[in-house]
Amino acid sequence: MLDPLQLLIEYARFPSISADPAYREGLAGARQYACGVLEKLGFKVEVVPTGLHPIILAERGGDRAWPHVIIYGHYDVQPADPLDKWTTPAFEPVVRGRRLYARGTADNKGPQAVQFAALARVLEENPNLPLRITFLIEGEEEIGSPSFGEFLKKHRDRLREANLVVLSDTGSPNADQIVITTGLRGLTGLEVTLTGPRTDLHSGIHGGAILNPLQALCELCASLHAPDGRVNIPGFYDDVREPAQWERDELAKYPYTLDDYRQFLGVSQFYTAPGYTALEAVRFGPTLDFNGIGGGYQGEGSKTVIPSKAFAKITMRLVPDQKAEVIRDLLEKTLRHRCPAGIKMEFSMKEGGSPYAVIPPGRPNTPADQPPVVARAFAAADAAITECFGKKPLYLREGGSVPIIGQIKQQTGLDSLMIGLFTPEDNLHAPDESFSLDILERGVNTYAKLLKGLAAG
Amino acid sequence: MLDPLQLLIEYARFPSISADPAYREGLAGARQYACGVLEKLGFKVEVVPTGLHPIILAERGGDRAWPHVIIYGHYDVQPADPLDKWTTPAFEPVVRGRRLYARGTADNKGPQAVQFAALARVLEENPNLPLRITFLIEGEEEIGSPSFGEFLKKHRDRLREANLVVLSDTGSPNADQIVITTGLRGLTGLEVTLTGPRTDLHSGIHGGAILNPLQALCELCASLHAPDGRVNIPGFYDDVREPAQWERDELAKYPYTLDDYRQFLGVSQFYTAPGYTALEAVRFGPTLDFNGIGGGYQGEGSKTVIPSKAFAKITMRLVPDQKAEVIRDLLEKTLRHRCPAGIKMEFSMKEGGSPYAVIPPGRPNTPADQPPVVARAFAAADAAITECFGKKPLYLREGGSVPIIGQIKQQTGLDSLMIGLFTPEDNLHAPDESFSLDILERGVNTYAKLLKGLAAG
Repeated sequence: MLDPLQLLIEYARFPSISADPAYREGLAGARQYACGVLEKLGFKVEVVPTGLHPIILAERGGDRAWPHVIIYGHYDVQPADPLDKWTTPAFEPVVRGRRLYARGTADNKGPQAVQFAALARVLEENPNLPLRITFLIEGEEEIGSPSFGEFLKKHRDRLREANLVVLSDTGSPNADQIVITTGLRGLTGLEVTLTGPRTDLHSGIHGGAILNPLQALCELCASLHAPDGRVNIPGFYDDVREPAQWERDELAKYPYTLDDYRQFLGVSQFYTAPGYTALEAVRFGPTLDFNGIGGGYQGEGSKTVIPSKAFAKITMRLVPDQKAEVIRDLLEKTLRHRCPAGIKMEFSMKEGGSPYAVIPPGRPNTPADQPPVVARAFAAADAAITECFGKKPLYLREGGSVPIIGQIKQQTGLDSLMIGLFTPEDNLHAPDESFSLDILERGVNTYAKLLKGLAAG
Repeated sequence: MLDPLQLLIEYARFPSISADPAYREGLAGARQYACGVLEKLGFKVEVVPTGLHPIILAERGGDRAWPHVIIYGHYDVQPADPLDKWTTPAFEPVVRGRRLYARGTADNKGPQAVQFAALARVLEENPNLPLRITFLIEGEEEIGSPSFGEFLKKHRDRLREANLVVLSDTGSPNADQIVITTGLRGLTGLEVTLTGPRTDLHSGIHGGAILNPLQALCELCASLHAPDGRVNIPGFYDDVREPAQWERDELAKYPYTLDDYRQFLGVSQFYTAPGYTALEAVRFGPTLDFNGIGGGYQGEGSKTVIPSKAFAKITMRLVPDQKAEVIRDLLEKTLRHRCPAGIKMEFSMKEGGSPYAVIPPGRPNTPADQPPVVARAFAAADAAITECFGKKPLYLREGGSVPIIGQIKQQTGLDSLMIGLFTPEDNLHAPDESFSLDILERGVNTYAKLLKGLAAG
């Protein structure tokens, strides 16, 4: 027996922050740890080099007649800062109440611990389980999977042999109501750097003569939203598809009021583009957000300087049928067009991913040609969740992005079954990230049933 | 003989950064060093405690019939960051070419080295020089002199006994053309912090539901300038007085073309409010500048977060007859008025100072009641500069602020004779600050002549 909590504690100790080159060792540690687990489960493990952090590709089951599932996950995590906001250190996992606290416990090491432990249990019962499994665990998810496109091109034919992808890198409202995620927002963006004067200048001696790059940055960034909250980039909404009625109906069953949500966020009021409630906006609407802005004096007190440079890290969440490359180009073009004279503008590129949507079996708009293994997987997941969590799952699109899911669909035609195992309480991407021990246990039971349900026979 | 270069090297080694509480020791070191020099020169030295960094008050000459001059300076310096932009470390003074490089060499330790060395020379020649001198050297100039108002209230009567203030904390275009500064811009401002959600949030899961505080900050900051470059705060320009014709005439003699200035700044074009050239704008016009803006992820790469908080450090340079308190209140009121719903706004206070102007003797608008010692001081300075620098000084207002000069005028009626000893090449408030060794030498000669000229005769 593999104890999922023990496994998760060990796995979460590695500071596998993909955004920061200082954490190569933490990434290697997490990667090796996951490889070790898979080897013990009898998988043939390959570590595929990429331009940055290698991808784990691990396989079992050689019979080509068996159903074949790709289980996707990622061993990298978000940066842990601001470090001073953590109750206990980000990479020292500790149980408080019915939760395990550490960076990456929910996103995505906890769900992987669920999958590993479920698989261990099923293979213990039946070492010859008639199911082909390919684990695909990447190390660049939190930075937009820049190497994945290249990897996919190279291994497309091999991955195409599978019937579907299964993953748990999406959310559910709480430990009693699991969501099967039917869509993901896409993600794209860029970092823009503005340069004004050749060096930082005294704001007394030179103030009034030149455009302060921080002022230029604020004016540019402020121009990216209209007063009603919509993104103010020409063409941005052109390809947005409205959700189907059954999607709105499912959302209406969501066990969470707008007021619950507002209180959870800790804001006095929402701010949404017209036509969406807050719960709809995060699923069905696209966004443009500033993830980081900086320039000039950042320390305590004051320094009367006009800085030479200022930057903004901007990302956009996209919905069907927006295309990542198209939208990124629109943003860059818009910024260039609005860049004031006297300011130099530079971009750092960022890979992204287009949005993804799948329609489960039995809906008015389910495609007639949906492969039988996909339909069977959704049915098996529905039954397993209903039994192990005590309630039928909801079928909802989610606001987050797993950019590679859209890429896999485009390149291999494979759909994804996404079982949401983290919840809003888990503080993803924020201080005090944690994972529910209840979900950990029920998740293992669910995945064990699902794997058996997927197997041939 | 006191060697001014040796003195400056020793003085500049102390990292006396007033903005950052981590540098208390550096401040104490610089303060004790200045006190030591003054004691050796025979001054009776007092260290006056304040709420933050003590003020040095040192006196010589007891005869109340002698002329009495206050020599002002400051032993604190600006922060040294960005540290990686310095050619050699900021607090390891080193001579390259005809310059000494270190933080504070120009602002304000070099000019003080000039004053100390000149005084040493004059007192060596005539230990009984019939001149009362009070050195007033503060340690909070670079953070807006927050303790000075209180100090002034307490010591007003004592300072009022003097005839004028002499200082060198202003600029000249180069080592051949010295400026006697006839006006200073005022300085006021605030730091505004915006809070949106209670904690940093995942921009995928929650993006679209709430106002990102960075977006709110950009929109607020962008609202503070009109498209023509004027400050967009109602009432901001109400008290601005246009410069006299003789001031524009003096500026026309400035040995520096607009194109020189543009190239010095390293910008492709200027950005000035209507009605001013760039050289006029920095002297005669008020400004609003962002000295630092930050929020969200500041590290390498990306982090898809909606931050909980964002801040902006804003300062404004004021011209006669704007009042610091009035303008600061206008800014705060404007920001509060424009603050969007769902965002909490907090201010940290910042002391400032109103602008200052003095009219030299012999101008059409020179006040009829200008005290004779003031007129004599300006004449002595004019003669000393003309002889030692080889050229008559120019009489110009300057863009920088020495907020306490206006306060001294208000509280004691004393005018200030400001001899500009730093130049644009000195990189004040920026990396690679330096001080010209030519100005150091000529400055000592000039101050020696001035002190003798000021003495009772």
